Amino acid sequence: MKEFTHINEQGRAKMVDVSQKDDTIRIAVARGEVRMHRKTLSLIKTGGIAKGDVLAVAQIAGIMGAKKSPDLIPMCHPLLLTGIDMSFFINEEESKVEIQASVKLTGKTGVEMEALTAVSIGALTIYDMCKAVDKGMEIQNIRLVSKSGGKSGDFLRKGEKLWEV
Amino acid sequence: MKEFTHINEQGRAKMVDVSQKDDTIRIAVARGEVRMHRKTLSLIKTGGIAKGDVLAVAQIAGIMGAKKSPDLIPMCHPLLLTGIDMSFFINEEESKVEIQASVKLTGKTGVEMEALTAVSIGALTIYDMCKAVDKGMEIQNIRLVSKSGGKSGDFLRKGEKLWEV
Amino acid sequence: MKEFTHINEQGRAKMVDVSQKDDTIRIAVARGEVRMHRKTLSLIKTGGIAKGDVLAVAQIAGIMGAKKSPDLIPMCHPLLLTGIDMSFFINEEESKVEIQASVKLTGKTGVEMEALTAVSIGALTIYDMCKAVDKGMEIQNIRLVSKSGGKSGDFLRKGEKLWEV
Amino acid sequence: MKEFTHINEQGRAKMVDVSQKDDTIRIAVARGEVRMHRKTLSLIKTGGIAKGDVLAVAQIAGIMGAKKSPDLIPMCHPLLLTGIDMSFFINEEESKVEIQASVKLTGKTGVEMEALTAVSIGALTIYDMCKAVDKGMEIQNIRLVSKSGGKSGDFLRKGEKLWEV
Amino acid sequence: MKEFTHINEQGRAKMVDVSQKDDTIRIAVARGEVRMHRKTLSLIKTGGIAKGDVLAVAQIAGIMGAKKSPDLIPMCHPLLLTGIDMSFFINEEESKVEIQASVKLTGKTGVEMEALTAVSIGALTIYDMCKAVDKGMEIQNIRLVSKSGGKSGDFLRKGEKLWEV
Amino acid sequence: MKEFTHINEQGRAKMVDVSQKDDTIRIAVARGEVRMHRKTLSLIKTGGIAKGDVLAVAQIAGIMGAKKSPDLIPMCHPLLLTGIDMSFFINEEESKVEIQASVKLTGKTGVEMEALTAVSIGALTIYDMCKAVDKGMEIQNIRLVSKSGGKSGDFLRKGEKLWEV
Repeated sequence: MKEFTHINEQGRAKMVDVSQKDDTIRIAVARGEVRMHRKTLSLIKTGGIAKGDVLAVAQIAGIMGAKKSPDLIPMCHPLLLTGIDMSFFINEEESKVEIQASVKLTGKTGVEMEALTAVSIGALTIYDMCKAVDKGMEIQNIRLVSKSGGKSGDFLRKGEKLWEV
Repeated sequence: MKEFTHINEQGRAKMVDVSQKDDTIRIAVARGEVRMHRKTLSLIKTGGIAKGDVLAVAQIAGIMGAKKSPDLIPMCHPLLLTGIDMSFFINEEESKVEIQASVKLTGKTGVEMEALTAVSIGALTIYDMCKAVDKGMEIQNIRLVSKSGGKSGDFLRKGEKLWEV
Repeated sequence: MKEFTHINEQGRAKMVDVSQKDDTIRIAVARGEVRMHRKTLSLIKTGGIAKGDVLAVAQIAGIMGAKKSPDLIPMCHPLLLTGIDMSFFINEEESKVEIQASVKLTGKTGVEMEALTAVSIGALTIYDMCKAVDKGMEIQNIRLVSKSGGKSGDFLRKGEKLWEV
Repeated sequence: MKEFTHINEQGRAKMVDVSQKDDTIRIAVARGEVRMHRKTLSLIKTGGIAKGDVLAVAQIAGIMGAKKSPDLIPMCHPLLLTGIDMSFFINEEESKVEIQASVKLTGKTGVEMEALTAVSIGALTIYDMCKAVDKGMEIQNIRLVSKSGGKSGDFLRKGEKLWEV
Repeated sequence: MKEFTHINEQGRAKMVDVSQKDDTIRIAVARGEVRMHRKTLSLIKTGGIAKGDVLAVAQIAGIMGAKKSPDLIPMCHPLLLTGIDMSFFINEEESKVEIQASVKLTGKTGVEMEALTAVSIGALTIYDMCKAVDKGMEIQNIRLVSKSGGKSGDFLRKGEKLWEV
Repeated sequence: MKEFTHINEQGRAKMVDVSQKDDTIRIAVARGEVRMHRKTLSLIKTGGIAKGDVLAVAQIAGIMGAKKSPDLIPMCHPLLLTGIDMSFFINEEESKVEIQASVKLTGKTGVEMEALTAVSIGALTIYDMCKAVDKGMEIQNIRLVSKSGGKSGDFLRKGEKLWEV
C-alpha cells in the first residue's frame, strides 16, 4: 500500500507536482444512484416532457460540474477535459435512477475525480428537482468503475461492466 | 403527493419564484459516508498531522462547496448562508468516515441542497486525498437528516439522531 | 437626461452605493433572437428529442448565466434572485428562435442586467449547439422589454407585449 | 448539411470528444454592436475620462468573459486561450458602438464561442454602464466574422473585412 | 483578548453562525501600496492612455475581486455588497502607488475582508500589468483603515485619515 | 527598460498573444508575511489543533486561490498548473507569520502571478481567521523571490534564499 501523496514536508496538503508526467489519453467512468419513492420515480418517468426535463437538467449540471472539479476539490489539478458524457438508467425494480459519467482527457493526470464529480452533481440535481415531493431520497454507491491511461495502469472495478448506451 | 415545482408552462425547468416567501431562520442537516479499506482508514486516522489533514481539507472543501450550491445546481436559489459547520466521525467497525454538515440561513428558501452539497464535496475530497492508495472507496448514503424553518414544516428522517459534537 | 452614475471622483468606474434603497419586488423581462438557416431551425424543431435538447440546454445555461451576472458585469451588484424563467418561440417565417427571460427579485436594485444576461447566454448556447451545421447564425435584438419595481418607475418598451406562455 | 454533434445516444447533449484532434493555432474574430440614443453615445464619447471608462470597463469585462466561456456555455470545452484583444469603434452616423473581439489559441478546438462571448459580455457591460440614462439600447448583430485553424477549414463571413486597429 | 471564533468543537474551522445578527449599514476602508522603480511609476503615470489603463484595470479587478471574497476566503460569509469604490494615489516621493478600497453593505457581518481583498487584487493586477518591466515590485502595508457598523463598534486605525477623493 | 506589453493599439489593455511561446517547465516562488500582536501569534501557535487550523485553512485557500488567478487578474492567461505548495514559518522575534508559495507549470507563460496570488489569499485568510482578536494585523512584503523557465531567463531576488522545508 502506497503512502499519501498530498502531504508536504510540513505535514500539510499540497497539489502534487505532475510536471514530469506524460500527456496521454485518459478515460474514467464513474457511477452512482439516487434511490427514491416509487411515486417519485414514476413522476420522473411518465409525464412526457417533465420526465425528460429532470434528467436533462441533471445531465447538464453533471457536465458543467465535471469542468468545475479543480475549483471544488482543493488538491485537484486543472485539466483540459476533451470529452464528457452522461447516461441515466431508470431502474424500476429497485426504484432508483442510475447515473453514469465518462470523462476523457489528453493530459498529465487521471480524470477519476471529474467523473465522480459529474455523477455527484447530477445526483444532487435530481434531488433538488424532486425534493418538493420526496425529501427522503438517498444518494448511494458513488464509485469509480474504470480508468485507463497513465502509468499507474488500468483499473476495472470488480463486478462492473460498461453500459450499452 | 405534490407536483414538481421546477417545470414551467413550456414543460421546461425554471427557478421557482420565492419572492413572496418570508425570511425565516432555516437549518438543514445532511449526512453521508465514505467506505474504504481498513488500511486507508488507518492511514487517515493514525499518522499524526497527516490524519488531521485529510479531514481538514475535506471540511474546508465542504464549507466552500456549500457556498457554491447555486452555481452547481441549476435551479437552486442564491442564498446568504449565515453559518456552516461540518463534523467527521471515524467508524472503525464499518471501516468508513461519516460526514455531517449543518447549514443555517435567514432567508426565503431552505438550505437542504447546501447541506447535501457540503457533504458531497467533502466526500469527494476524501476520495481525492486517498485515491492513490485506494481506488475502490465508495461514497454512500448521502441523505437529508433534518430540516427546520419555512412553511412546509420541519422534517426529521426516521431513525436518525443528531450527533453530540 | 441623467448623468452616468458609475463614475467616481477620480473619473473611474465604481459600483454605486445602493445601501439606502428599499427592498421591493422587482421584475424585468428581456428578449432576443438567434437568426439561422431554415435547415438549422428545422434540425432544432424536428428530430424528436434532439430538438428539445438544444433549447433545454440553452434554457439551463440562461438561468445559470443570470445567477452569474455580478461575476460577469463589473459594476453589477450581487443580488438574491428569487425567480428566473425562460421561454423559447420558434419563428418559422423569419427563420429564428426567439428567447424571453423574466427575472424576479425582492431587493435593492433592478434585475435588468440579469434578464439581459440570461437571454445572451441562452443565445450563445444555441449558437454553440448548432455551430457545426451553421456558422452564419446571428444573435439579434437583445433588449429590455419591461421592468417594474424600484423608485425609477416602470418601463415598457414601445411595441412590445408579453408572450402568452 | 452535417448533423448535430452535441447529442449522445440517449438523445441528450454531451461535450463531444476532441481527444484525437491536433493542437493547432486557431483564431476567431467576432463582432457586434450596441445601438443607443445619440445623447448616450455622446456621453460615452465626450466627457473626457468618463468616455474612456465605459469602454475600458466593457473591454476588461469582455476579456474576462472570454476566459469564462466553458463555465457559461454547457457543452463548451475548457481551453487555454493564448491571446484576447478587443476593439471599439464609435459609429456616429448609425448612433452605435461597434465591438470586435479576436481570440487566439494553440489547442484542439476552435475559439468561436470565446470570441462571441467576449463581444456579448462587452455589450452587456456597455448597457449596464449607460442604462441609467437610456434603457432602450439594443444589442445587435453579434456574429462570427472569421475563423482559421483546425481541420474544418477557414471561414470568412461574406461582406466583412478586418478592422484596421 | 477574545478567543478565535472560527473553530468548531472538533477543533476545526467553521463558518460562524451570524443568523441572529442585525442587518445594519456597515462600511470598511482598507489600504495598501505597490512599491516599484521610479521608471515603472513614471511609465504608469505619463504615457497618456497607457497610464490610465494600468490603474483602470487594477480598479475593475479590485471591485470584481471584492465580490468574490466568499469564494476566495474559506470562512467568509456571502454578502450582498451595496457599494464598492477604489482610489489610487501616485506617491512620487516614495515611488509607489497607494490603493484605497471602501466597501458598503446593509447586512449581518462586516465587510473588512471585502475591502482588504479589493486592495490585494488591485495590487496584484498592478504587478501583473507592470511585471514585464519590473519584477522587483513589492506589495506592502495592506491594512484595515476603518470600519463602522455592527455591535463590535467602530474601528479607526491609529495615524490614518480618510483621503479626500 | 522594456515597454508595457498589455496595451493594444487603441491604448487599452489586452491579454498578450503567447501562441508562439514554447511549453517549458516554469517555477515561481513568492513570499509575504502577516504581522500581528504577540498574543495573536501565540494563539495561532499554541492551542494544539487550533493553531494547525488557522494555517491549514490559509494553506488550502492559497492553493485554491492560485488556481483562480486568471479569474481574478484580468490580463492573466489561463494555465494548467502542475504543482502548488505552500509553507508557513512562525517568526516570533518579529511577531509575524511568513508565507511561501511555489508554483510549477509546463506551459507557455510564467507562474509569478499564481505564486503571488497564493501568498496574498493565504495572508487574507490568516487575517480573516484572526480578525476577531486583532484588527490591526498588516499584510507586508509580498514579493517574487525566484522564477525559472521561459526565454526571459531566471530571476532571483537579491538577499533571498530558499527555505529548507
